[in-house]
Parts: sequence; C-alpha cells; structure tokens
Amino acid sequence: MSTKINQNYLKLNESYLFSEIARRIRVWQSENPEVSNKLIRMGIGDVTRPLPRSVVDAMITAAKEMGEAETFRGYGPEQGYDFLKEAVRKYYTKFGVELDSDEIFISDGAKSDLGNILDLFDKDNTVLVTDPVYPVYVDTNMMDDRKVIFAMSSEENDFLPMPAPEYKADIIYLCSPNNPTGAVYNRESLAKWVEFAKENGSIILFDAAYECFVTGDYPHSIFEIPGAREVAIEFCSLSKKAGFTGTRCGYTIVPDTLEREGGNLNKMWLRRQTTKFNGVSYITQRGAEAIFSQEGEKEIEENIRYYRDNAKIITDTMDKLHIYYTGGKNSPYIWLKCPGDMDSWSFFDRLLKEAYVVGTPGAGFGKSGDKFFRLTAFSTHENTKEAMERFEKFVMKTR
Amino acid sequence: MSTKINQNYLKLNESYLFSEIARRIRVWQSENPEVSNKLIRMGIGDVTRPLPRSVVDAMITAAKEMGEAETFRGYGPEQGYDFLKEAVRKYYTKFGVELDSDEIFISDGAKSDLGNILDLFDKDNTVLVTDPVYPVYVDTNMMDDRKVIFAMSSEENDFLPMPAPEYKADIIYLCSPNNPTGAVYNRESLAKWVEFAKENGSIILFDAAYECFVTGDYPHSIFEIPGAREVAIEFCSLSKKAGFTGTRCGYTIVPDTLEREGGNLNKMWLRRQTTKFNGVSYITQRGAEAIFSQEGEKEIEENIRYYRDNAKIITDTMDKLHIYYTGGKNSPYIWLKCPGDMDSWSFFDRLLKEAYVVGTPGAGFGKSGDKFFRLTAFSTHENTKEAMERFEKFVMKTR
Repeated sequence: MSTKINQNYLKLNESYLFSEIARRIRVWQSENPEVSNKLIRMGIGDVTRPLPRSVVDAMITAAKEMGEAETFRGYGPEQGYDFLKEAVRKYYTKFGVELDSDEIFISDGAKSDLGNILDLFDKDNTVLVTDPVYPVYVDTNMMDDRKVIFAMSSEENDFLPMPAPEYKADIIYLCSPNNPTGAVYNRESLAKWVEFAKENGSIILFDAAYECFVTGDYPHSIFEIPGAREVAIEFCSLSKKAGFTGTRCGYTIVPDTLEREGGNLNKMWLRRQTTKFNGVSYITQRGAEAIFSQEGEKEIEENIRYYRDNAKIITDTMDKLHIYYTGGKNSPYIWLKCPGDMDSWSFFDRLLKEAYVVGTPGAGFGKSGDKFFRLTAFSTHENTKEAMERFEKFVMKTR
Repeated sequence: MSTKINQNYLKLNESYLFSEIARRIRVWQSENPEVSNKLIRMGIGDVTRPLPRSVVDAMITAAKEMGEAETFRGYGPEQGYDFLKEAVRKYYTKFGVELDSDEIFISDGAKSDLGNILDLFDKDNTVLVTDPVYPVYVDTNMMDDRKVIFAMSSEENDFLPMPAPEYKADIIYLCSPNNPTGAVYNRESLAKWVEFAKENGSIILFDAAYECFVTGDYPHSIFEIPGAREVAIEFCSLSKKAGFTGTRCGYTIVPDTLEREGGNLNKMWLRRQTTKFNGVSYITQRGAEAIFSQEGEKEIEENIRYYRDNAKIITDTMDKLHIYYTGGKNSPYIWLKCPGDMDSWSFFDRLLKEAYVVGTPGAGFGKSGDKFFRLTAFSTHENTKEAMERFEKFVMKTR
C-alpha cells in the first residue's frame, strides 16, 4: 500500500517554448550588450494597456465596501454574482444570443475552466485539436491519458481546418479567432462544425477568448450558430478584451440543453464548481461589471482600436512584402510564413540577431507551424512601427 | 461514437444540508411572521467582520497601479508573486518551519486546491477521512470513483480519531482545528499520524484553514512535526484569518521532498497549476501581503479576538449547562451534544421554533454527527449573547 500518482504527469513534455525563447534572448543580449536596449518584443501574448478608468474605479469602490461592516461581502455564489451574469447575458443579446442566467458561470479565467471542464468527461474519449494549437488543450488531455488527434492546417485551408471523416472525435476544440494563427471561422464554416458535432454526438469546446477583436459579420459566439446549444460549451475571457490578464476574470457558457448519456452538462458543471471552486473575488467581479457599462465599453473600444492599429501596421508590412499571413484583421495575432523558406527557429534567430525583433516560432505550436511565425499587436505604436521598419529591411536583405 | 461523461457525477448525492436548513427557516418564517425578525443565525461558517483597513488600502493602491501604463501588471506567475510567497515563508518561521519559496503556491482558496490536488493521484487509491467530515473531501473523491473509508469519531476519542490498523489508506485527510468539530490535534497525536503515513507510504492532505485560531502549544502547521515533509501537503486559507471568504486567497505547501513512484509532487503540482490555472489577481495578492505586515497582523489579531470572545460566550454557556462539546478554544466552531438525547435535526427544529436560533445539525457532516450540533462564533457579540441566553432558557425548559 502506497499512494499511487497520476503517471500521465511523468509523460508530459516540458513546456519549453517561452523559456527557450528567453534563453536565446539572454545569450544574444550578453553577446551584444551595445545594442541590447534596441530589442523590441513582438512575441508577447500579454496586453500592455492599463485597466480602463471605470474598471479601476469600480474595484476601488468595491474594496472600500469590503472594509465596512454594513457593506462587507463574504462567500459569494460559486457561479458568480447576478449583477455580472446579467451584464454578460445582455452582452450576448447584441449577437442575437439569448442565454439563461443559469447558463453563465463566472470564472477566474478561460485557462482554468478549459482545464477543469475535463473533470466532466470520461478518460475514454477521443479528442480533436486543430494544429497549430494552444498547448494547454493537448497537455490537459494528456494528464488524463485521452487520445488526441490533430486536424492539420496550412496555407491550403487558410489555417481553418474543416470537418472530415477522419476527424471523428468525441470532444472537439475550436478556437476562433485562433491562437496562434489569428484565423477566424465565418458562419458557414462554423455551422459545418456544429453539424459535424451533431452527427457524431461530439461536444465542441469553443474558446472565444479573442472574440472582442471580431469585426463585420464573423460570429463572436458559437451560439450564434443554430443547433450549437446542443453541442457546445463556450469559454470566454476578459483578459484581452479589458486587460484582465493579471486581474483574472472570464466566463463559461454551458447551455442547459446540453445532455449526454443521461447527464446534463450544465448541472454537472454547477456541481463541479460548487464542490471545487469558491467563486471569483467580489472586487474583481465589480471591476468586470464595469467593462459592460456604457463608459466601460467606450474605454475598451479605445484599447482594442489601439491594438487593431498595431495589427494593421503589421499586416500592411506583410502586404507590401507579399508575405502570406493569416490574422491581424479579427485578431491581435499575425501568423506569417517565414520568408525564404526558413524554418521558424532559424527565422527567430536571424530576426533577433539582425533586426533586434523577437517573435514566437510557429514550431512551438505544433507541426503545422514549422515554417510560420507569430507576431502580436500588444506592443506600443512606436515599437510596432520601428519593428516593422526593421523587419522590412531585414526581409529585403534576404531576398 | 459519442461524448462519454464522467458517470461518477450521476452517483453524487445532492449537497442538500444548507438548502434544507434554508427551507426549514423559510417555512418557519412564513408561519411565524410576528417573531421572524428575532431570528439569530449561529450556523454560518462565514465571517462577518469587514476586511482590515491595511488590506483595503493595499488593494486600492494596487488597483490604481493597474490603471497606469507604467505600473500595470499583466500575467503574473501562476504560483504567486514572490512578495506574497516571501510573506508566507516568514509567517511559517514563527512556528519554526523553514520553507523554500518554491514550496509555496498561492491559490484562490483552500477549497479549489483541495479539489484540484486530486489531479495528481491515480483513481486507484484508498482515501481515509475522519467522520464528521467537511463534505468536499468525500464528494471530490467520489467524482473520481476512489474508495473512501471513514475514521469515526465520538465523545470517546474527543472527536480526534487516531491511527488504527483498519485505517490503512493511501491518502489521508486531516483537518485541525477541525471543521465541523473544532477539535485540534496536539503535537503527539499529529506525530502519530505522520508516523502512520510514513509506515504506510500514505500522503496526508492537511487542511489548516483554521490555524489562525490555534493558541498555546498546539501546532499551526503539520510541518512542525518532524518527518511531515516526506508525507504531507498543507492547505491554508486567508478566509477565516482575514475575512477573505469573498476576496479569495490562500496557499498550499507542497514540500519538494515529497516523492512517490518516481514523481515529485511539488513538480507535479507546479505543472498542474501552470497548465490549468493562471494565478490569483495581483490586487488580491497585494491585499493578502498586507495581512502579514505589522499593521495587518495587529488588525487581524483584533478580529480573531472578537470571534474568540464569541466562542467563549458559547463555551461558557455549555460549561454552565454541563453540555459536552469540543472546539471553541482553538476554533470558531463549537460542536455540542444535543441535550436530552435529541437527534440533530429534531434539536435544530426545536431550537429554531422555541429559541429562534439557527445552528447546523451534525447529521449533515456524517454519521458521527447524528446527535451533535455545530454553533459558530462568527456572529456579533450582541447576537451571540442573546442567542446563548435563549439557548439556556430553552435547555432548562427541556430538562
């Protein structure tokens, strides 16, 4: 008799992508101290703009409430306060999606819920992820020893893989706008995935963390697609929308119409969260509520426009240089083909050494990323412009 | 092919304790509107005193930092900021416990981590819980279909069960000071559990959520016991210590010396948290840091003294009435034997109807609670006094 550990943890690969990037930067800096202050980081997936004023004000007010006996709040509902769920419910009506309040679960971020949702599923499910992929989808399933299959993407499908007979799976991850490719599904394509899930009895885990960057007629939510309420769970985050990467708040939509094998997924998730979670800080939830106020929405739109302008500086450069890319229009990510048929790590090294610009090698996101590279719009205007000027010079030199 | 759910969820009992209490109160109130404003709630496990001034001030400062580009913080370390880990590390040195910073993981509360830690263990482990029990220990293991055995407690062992050959298990939950009984293990008893775990290769999950109520020579941390670093993980919360039930922060200690079957539990937990968690809000962590400041500690001590004084009002009443109880000295909980050999739900009903006082029936915490009742020290002085006067009159009447 002795404690038996989850052996799957021992099989996990080290997640070395960002530490390897950091290591290469350190080496370069130590070898090139005279130019190391010229480094521009275009690889970060983190926001840089501060929290909107209305969010900060709401959190200060809430913190003060917590300091007075009359307005102090202890344990809140695990699934979130009604005031915030109501704000989220109203937000969805903008896209024509009607949700019941009980279908909305406030979380401390999409990453937590994307991991924890797997508690509801048996180990014996085949999982489909698109490649390139946000590594968390794969790692969390490896921890449970689920079989993972990959829907490969490439220039041919514009990095938007579509259903195919060999992609039959019980659980399907879709992320649109996508991390890392920035590619976004239109209604017709998403409807095909919903149809495919319905035919196969699969559940789609839809990661909408970047929905705030969507423009035009592209869907913000999978629940804009008829039939999705019977096949999908949606994860959303306030991280990119409102700069909440360090403040931690998101929400997960589990329709009460989603049932499998006699289990109602909404009731199961409620049971999971009331048993293994204790809700998000009241102060944070008040801050999150402010995002959906008139003033908050105006401030958010300004921040998003700032990042969109950066994205345009990048895509304009790619257009000018006739470099193939996806994203940048409905996404803060630009996924570009490495010039000169370079592989992504070689391109990373040369861009660092010759242009002092850092991005993320596509290989870090899966096999389909071997010759691709991710740039992000989260830097300042000034640095984005400067980086793209250097990028252009560097590419011209290699031609 | 169709999504297979985790069938264990369908076998879970509804957690009906607090909803049943609420239902009985509603019925009583609607039948007795003329006295319903006299109700005093002594069943709540939630704090009532507001956050200390120093905590509120720290959170306001942090919220303002988040509103300025120069001081804004995005993603933080999943395992917590160094400033808070350092404060926790120093706190442990007061009990003679030396921790490495990497052994401290900041969490959004003990409940989350107590549930999520099970990710690290195989389904094939036998779990021991003491009865009466915090229901979360049982439910989270039922979700994974682990075998759960119970170490029964009673007046005979003063609700402090000790190791016995039939309690051999791979995972052992201990909570001291205990919820719901308030009983606290002394050094010798805890050392016997550590010894027992060592002999059997078991891991102790030690819930120290109420350690701030400990006085005298009783241990605050299981790591005060020699050898515990090889057998224990400790969960702690700022909920009761500093009124963080709605603010959400705690910490988990996983010694880097804890290994099983080739896996280092510290490294496994780090992998789990970096994959399925994204850290606690920066603002919350700054609030938590303030708890450990000189000013913060003074304020905390004042709050805890307030609750301790309430506990003394309750235990004085029990002493006077010669009612058997545990807790109240090193705990905000008083676990008393129902007078007149009543079962706990009958006592609940009569106390509600005849004294307008609400507590928690012991049956809700397990079989050993059938004839016991939990009162808490989290009310106001005034209400606690009034409730105990009514309690005394009621008990005298029944004799």
